[in-house]
Amino acid sequence: MGQIVSGASNRKGPNGARQHIYDLLRAQIRDGTLPVGSRVPSTRTLAAEHSVSRTTVTSAFEQLIAEGYLETAAGQVARVAGSPAFQVTKGAAPMGSRPPSLSNYAQRVMATHPPGSPGDPPPIDFLYGAVELRNFPLTAWRRAYVSELVRHQPHLNYALPEGDLHFRQTLHAYLRRARGLTCDADQIVVVHGATQALDLCARLLLDPGDAFAMEEPGYVTARRSFEATGARRLSVPVDANGLVTTKLPEGHNARLVYVTPSHQFPLGGVLPIGRRLELLAWAKRQDAWIIEDDYDGEFRYGQRPIDALQSMDSEGRVIYVGTFSKALSPQLRLGYLVLPRQLVSAFRQAKRLTDHHAPVLEQRTLAALIESGAYERHVRRVRRDYDRKRRTLIASVAQYLPADAQIGGDAAGLHVVLWLPSFQPEDERRIASAARHRGVGVYPVSPLFADALNHFHPRPAGLILGYASLSLEQIQNGIRILASTMAAASANLD
Amino acid sequence: MGQIVSGASNRKGPNGARQHIYDLLRAQIRDGTLPVGSRVPSTRTLAAEHSVSRTTVTSAFEQLIAEGYLETAAGQVARVAGSPAFQVTKGAAPMGSRPPSLSNYAQRVMATHPPGSPGDPPPIDFLYGAVELRNFPLTAWRRAYVSELVRHQPHLNYALPEGDLHFRQTLHAYLRRARGLTCDADQIVVVHGATQALDLCARLLLDPGDAFAMEEPGYVTARRSFEATGARRLSVPVDANGLVTTKLPEGHNARLVYVTPSHQFPLGGVLPIGRRLELLAWAKRQDAWIIEDDYDGEFRYGQRPIDALQSMDSEGRVIYVGTFSKALSPQLRLGYLVLPRQLVSAFRQAKRLTDHHAPVLEQRTLAALIESGAYERHVRRVRRDYDRKRRTLIASVAQYLPADAQIGGDAAGLHVVLWLPSFQPEDERRIASAARHRGVGVYPVSPLFADALNHFHPRPAGLILGYASLSLEQIQNGIRILASTMAAASANLD
Repeated sequence: MGQIVSGASNRKGPNGARQHIYDLLRAQIRDGTLPVGSRVPSTRTLAAEHSVSRTTVTSAFEQLIAEGYLETAAGQVARVAGSPAFQVTKGAAPMGSRPPSLSNYAQRVMATHPPGSPGDPPPIDFLYGAVELRNFPLTAWRRAYVSELVRHQPHLNYALPEGDLHFRQTLHAYLRRARGLTCDADQIVVVHGATQALDLCARLLLDPGDAFAMEEPGYVTARRSFEATGARRLSVPVDANGLVTTKLPEGHNARLVYVTPSHQFPLGGVLPIGRRLELLAWAKRQDAWIIEDDYDGEFRYGQRPIDALQSMDSEGRVIYVGTFSKALSPQLRLGYLVLPRQLVSAFRQAKRLTDHHAPVLEQRTLAALIESGAYERHVRRVRRDYDRKRRTLIASVAQYLPADAQIGGDAAGLHVVLWLPSFQPEDERRIASAARHRGVGVYPVSPLFADALNHFHPRPAGLILGYASLSLEQIQNGIRILASTMAAASANLD
Repeated sequence: MGQIVSGASNRKGPNGARQHIYDLLRAQIRDGTLPVGSRVPSTRTLAAEHSVSRTTVTSAFEQLIAEGYLETAAGQVARVAGSPAFQVTKGAAPMGSRPPSLSNYAQRVMATHPPGSPGDPPPIDFLYGAVELRNFPLTAWRRAYVSELVRHQPHLNYALPEGDLHFRQTLHAYLRRARGLTCDADQIVVVHGATQALDLCARLLLDPGDAFAMEEPGYVTARRSFEATGARRLSVPVDANGLVTTKLPEGHNARLVYVTPSHQFPLGGVLPIGRRLELLAWAKRQDAWIIEDDYDGEFRYGQRPIDALQSMDSEGRVIYVGTFSKALSPQLRLGYLVLPRQLVSAFRQAKRLTDHHAPVLEQRTLAALIESGAYERHVRRVRRDYDRKRRTLIASVAQYLPADAQIGGDAAGLHVVLWLPSFQPEDERRIASAARHRGVGVYPVSPLFADALNHFHPRPAGLILGYASLSLEQIQNGIRILASTMAAASANLD
């Protein structure tokens, strides 16, 4: 208990003397110096002993009485209150009996390896998911936030689980304009980033033993969320055009399929219209949900972004997942679900139960940016910036890497895949760690295959290159260094 | 598909003409006017027809090719691409086959009734959980947020699941000072409000069929979170001193117990030291976790706040749940868990998987307020304000209500219970709705009993009165109106 007393004596404030008396008596009661039922020294005695006023002592007594350490009857001196239980922690036991075990969910979460965090980031890091921080609309965001903070003060209490109505209305109009979505504002549930959207889908749509289909290779967090429910994964291969819909599982009673049609993660294919229709037809046959993760659909180069799959869904089977992590910043944790009507109520209630609602101020701030047009101007500006970086990356690869090196998935998004036909998948890690050794972070494709190297084989070695957070110079230098690394690596191969 | 085309034609931007051609062709392909394999009119023809440049038409073609509607070989005219799947959505089917069913979790969530939302709030609303909005430290928050936004810009990417290290260190020092907690910063996991803390406990510690113990009456959201896992509730009665620890279930293999020792919700008892020790001893015997929800522990009147139960835990069994919803605002959605060491890793991984991490800017802002001392000054100021309101409430009850009316749980927190011995629990709803009719919101105790009126019976009627968000005048008027309502009600009883 010493820690507590010292913890207590750390406390500042005007009541130092009272605090001292309080701590002293509590410690003596706890360690049995003052046994249960015994009389406590009178306020007079203690006041004299510690040369403090009797009022100070009385105030300490009151605290101890309030906390149940002391009891007193009218006109009597205080006695140490309590029961035999008082002795329980005398000489506290060290970390006792085995810790109670965790739930099955917890054990599944612990069993799946979290995405590796490779220590300090290298000077030039082609990390996927990082964005250009200078692109954050600092001034616009600050102005909007501050004005919402003031205007909005009367609304600082609990809000709707589905999110701020005004924000959902603004977002709804934007999604129709920018992504072709066909929905109403009340089909939107604002969530704490796309990660929460996927977790809610997993909890509300999957039971242990159920089957779900997803892209292979695919987004590890989505896979982990779905598998953490105890559901069974059915991997569907992807090619340069995204999900190979002819390989969708029939007769396994899959409850849902997870897809990234605008820009397949990680390989970058854009799902063609024919496959989109086949996917919708499959979902109807299987009576399954389609989770469309549109994680970077706003960043398509050359043509305007392709309308979301949701816009073709005439049956209410597509759950659309959107995020502001790419266009603004991942740390804002702002995302949203666009739900089929029959799912709205369940998701609202689950959101209420899991974390009540998303912070309101950020929703209002973003609504203001969207309404003023600042958000769309920002996205256009950022898209141009990322396009420059993308073209620099492609040019650098052509300039520095062997002729057989190919870039895939560059039509959209903030990353590409670099295919290296003169290397095997087994070489990816070696190349990546050699490059990291020279200060360049590149990321093997293999870990994104759920079934390691078994699927989609034979294939060349592949590296994921995210370029959003790097400068043009960093991109050029990074690829140059990667090239020399690979030259050394192939030398080792001979 | 008409909706989509109109959705598309809503789009603004420089590419109106290209957009028009694109929408037209896509619609004709989708409705079969241009069958699969057929030639598309030449760019020349279309340019002439629509009096636009051929470049415009070509650009629309490129988009359609990119999306897989058209295909073209070198030197050939474009043809409509695709497969029989194209016909699938022709004349889209109306809302088709039965919606796939939801998970067991979802069905349990849907089965439990959400806390009733009684429409528009009455003019004088004794709603528990609402706080005084004028108390929000607007200027301090704005200054800190803006300076963090600028300083912090280099850290706008993904952050640690357990929360910002600097915030956790600041919070750790504060919790030792203010609540006597004995922990390190790495035992803290920052969450999206106390609601998420409880949901994470439910998911990580309970399986279907497990047993959990909780206060009866108790916090409905906690009960719903635990029951949503499929676990079995064991109700433990509370009295004026909180949880009746002698009634804790033995031999039911309870995995955890949920308690609010600083200020029992809703009845307001402060758990005495003896019961705290008995509770810890029970948890050791049962090998169970204790979830200590310290939802308003900072607001104790008269004496300084009682140290948290966690400060007496020598065995690492107490999971401490804290929130800033009462001291600042519920809409910030900032809360935290202080975990026994053996749970830290599971909670971090689960947080990562459920929503990655809490927003960083708000954590940094709050850290700045705590470091500067502004937060503790704020809490002291707010405590004085709420104490004034509390005393006004007590005085008004003495002045206006019958002598037998008693107030309970007024030693701490932002609400009290009003006991009305001349009424039965069955009368609570009638009184509440009559009061609401007169513009005063008061809240029956009965719905907070999991087993309705069976437990803790016979007892008088009880009403929960939250006073934090009301002015002194509103409190006086509210009680006056409630008194006349009750007079009328008792008249009806005769």
